[in-house]
Amino acid sequence: MHNPHAGQSPVTVIGLGLMGQALAGTFLGNGHPTTVWNRSAEKADELVARGATLAASVRDAVEASPLVIVCVSDYAAAHGLLAPLGDALAGRVLVNLTSGTSEQARESAEWAAGEGVTYLDGAIMAIPPVIGTADAFLLYSGPQDAYDAHEPTLKALGAGTTYLGADHGLASLYDVALLGIMWGTLNSFLHGAALVGTAKVDATVFAPFANRWIEAVTGFVSAYAGQIDEGAYPALDATIDTHVATMDHLIHESESGGVNTELPRLVKALADRAVAEGRGGDGYAAMIEQFRRPSA
Amino acid sequence: MHNPHAGQSPVTVIGLGLMGQALAGTFLGNGHPTTVWNRSAEKADELVARGATLAASVRDAVEASPLVIVCVSDYAAAHGLLAPLGDALAGRVLVNLTSGTSEQARESAEWAAGEGVTYLDGAIMAIPPVIGTADAFLLYSGPQDAYDAHEPTLKALGAGTTYLGADHGLASLYDVALLGIMWGTLNSFLHGAALVGTAKVDATVFAPFANRWIEAVTGFVSAYAGQIDEGAYPALDATIDTHVATMDHLIHESESGGVNTELPRLVKALADRAVAEGRGGDGYAAMIEQFRRPSA
Ligand SMILES: NC(=O)c1ccc[n+]([C@@H]2O[C@H](COP(=O)([O-])OP(=O)(O)OC[C@H]3O[C@@H](n4cnc5c(N)ncnc54)[C@H](OP(=O)(O)O)[C@@H]3O)[C@@H](O)[C@H]2O)c1
Ligand SMILES: NC(=O)c1ccc[n+]([C@@H]2O[C@H](COP(=O)([O-])OP(=O)(O)OC[C@H]3O[C@@H](n4cnc5c(N)ncnc54)[C@H](OP(=O)(O)O)[C@@H]3O)[C@@H](O)[C@H]2O)c1
Repeated sequence: MHNPHAGQSPVTVIGLGLMGQALAGTFLGNGHPTTVWNRSAEKADELVARGATLAASVRDAVEASPLVIVCVSDYAAAHGLLAPLGDALAGRVLVNLTSGTSEQARESAEWAAGEGVTYLDGAIMAIPPVIGTADAFLLYSGPQDAYDAHEPTLKALGAGTTYLGADHGLASLYDVALLGIMWGTLNSFLHGAALVGTAKVDATVFAPFANRWIEAVTGFVSAYAGQIDEGAYPALDATIDTHVATMDHLIHESESGGVNTELPRLVKALADRAVAEGRGGDGYAAMIEQFRRPSA
Repeated sequence: MHNPHAGQSPVTVIGLGLMGQALAGTFLGNGHPTTVWNRSAEKADELVARGATLAASVRDAVEASPLVIVCVSDYAAAHGLLAPLGDALAGRVLVNLTSGTSEQARESAEWAAGEGVTYLDGAIMAIPPVIGTADAFLLYSGPQDAYDAHEPTLKALGAGTTYLGADHGLASLYDVALLGIMWGTLNSFLHGAALVGTAKVDATVFAPFANRWIEAVTGFVSAYAGQIDEGAYPALDATIDTHVATMDHLIHESESGGVNTELPRLVKALADRAVAEGRGGDGYAAMIEQFRRPSA
């Protein structure tokens, strides 16, 4: 019988937390000879039952494959595992999918360069059950030839896999920036759900309106991005002055409903500063100036 | 020739700012006999050229149509125009599309009830150029029979027109809650654009990633809404503890990039409180509890 997976290249996954298990499971499902290692070995049981090889040591795991993926809690944990290996990683491609900052990614890249290790830093914009689906998107940065060489393997993890550039910090930078957007959106949704909850409106009744409106906001994001790059913010729709007036409504509504006021107060404080700087007649994209500096 | 607009019912629009002009223009375009009034009469010129009737007074405007729409800067301005009219509004349906709080909407409803005026409060979730298109959504609350009677006319303003319920405050409540989501999403996008900007990534390069991710977040919104209504928040994906660890990355990245840290600090402060209350092992939906109270 024809094996559609014949010849898939070997891959090693170090770290079998919720995410590492999803990564290794996806490689296995795509027919890659998959070697795994985890500090607590029992987390490999299910993967081994599905055909993965459990390495006896991190070194053995690394030496099993030309592509080594590490996904543990943080960069310190990753370094604790990899730094003692000496030249075992030399000549291989190390892909770090552990979350961190761009600074940590660039430091890891320097360490890797010193050890003769080809290093890619990555970020996973997906939860474990989405790994391997069309909805998963993963971001990579570092040397393009290393990415290109392993792109077919890496794409197995998510159709939306994207190479960002040579600067190793890019994947982590996008990651934190995107996570910030997630928290910003979720927090304001939760705040809104709390507000409508004061009138006994269920969150499940409100959510479709919220999502429909968020959809509209993605249109504003695209429009404002162009203005940000051009550095000119003519009001396409409402001016910041108009926004400020309705921000007052949000604060009053929050106060009278007894819900959190910190979030709307920060929203208004930032806009007030833009007005104080003469930006009241501009569009909301002019608010970028408030975010480009540390604080008030 | 057949006139597709024959028999459209007359409508009056009071207030011809950016939004009022869009509303009146859309009614005109749909063949409604349209009467307009604005404090500064010259803003009616273009509409009159297109066939609108400019009323000489607010009273004349009101008396021209069974459906009277007011859209001015704020509720105080709306009351200033309508309160002196005596019984001119009696027997008509007054629709207030001016932005405000649910309290202001309920106060207006009380005033209207005292005057024998049938009152609907509304909110416009669209910018003027979108009025009249499939993308515009407008929300209404107040007596359902009044809404139903005028729904065909009101739907001309946006395909996504929705009646929310009898409580006059609902439209404004949804409005401020949705606007809060807009600011939350836009601010975190602008913060993210400032962050990636530190690595010379253009906002137009970042925006498609942001919008793709926001799309994913709408899935979280739907999932969390169900948990909020059930009052149980098992971690479907990451726990709040895991979120807090990556929130630290966002703060550090913001600090080292010299961009705004107030937004990520508030994000983390809210999550820290949830952890302090024993919610660290729950999913992010448990954060609703933080938003349901005034502050720390
Ligand atoms: N889960 C998600 O939704 C998600 C999404 C995007 C990105 N991520 C990122 O993916 C990474 C892993 O997340 P996860 O969800 O898999 O976390 P997790 O379930 O908590 O697993 C953590 C993993 O790190 C290992 N580890 C921690 N400290 C270690 C140390 N000092 N030495 C050796 N191994 C150590 C753990 O080993 P033990 O099993 O022995 O404890 C485990 O394999 C994190 O950076 C996370 O931010 C996760
Ligand atoms: N524009 C948007 O994108 C948008 C979106 C959703 C909701 N809205 C809401 O729609 C309403 C109108 O917005 P807009 O964009 O049309 O604002 P605008 O362009 O600033 O127009 C304000 C209107 O209010 C009138 N007005 C203000 N104070 C008045 C007073 N004391 N007496 C009589 N008339 C007075 C103005 O008359 P003059 O022309 O004589 O000054 C003008 O017609 C606001 O509540 C706004 O929040 C707007």
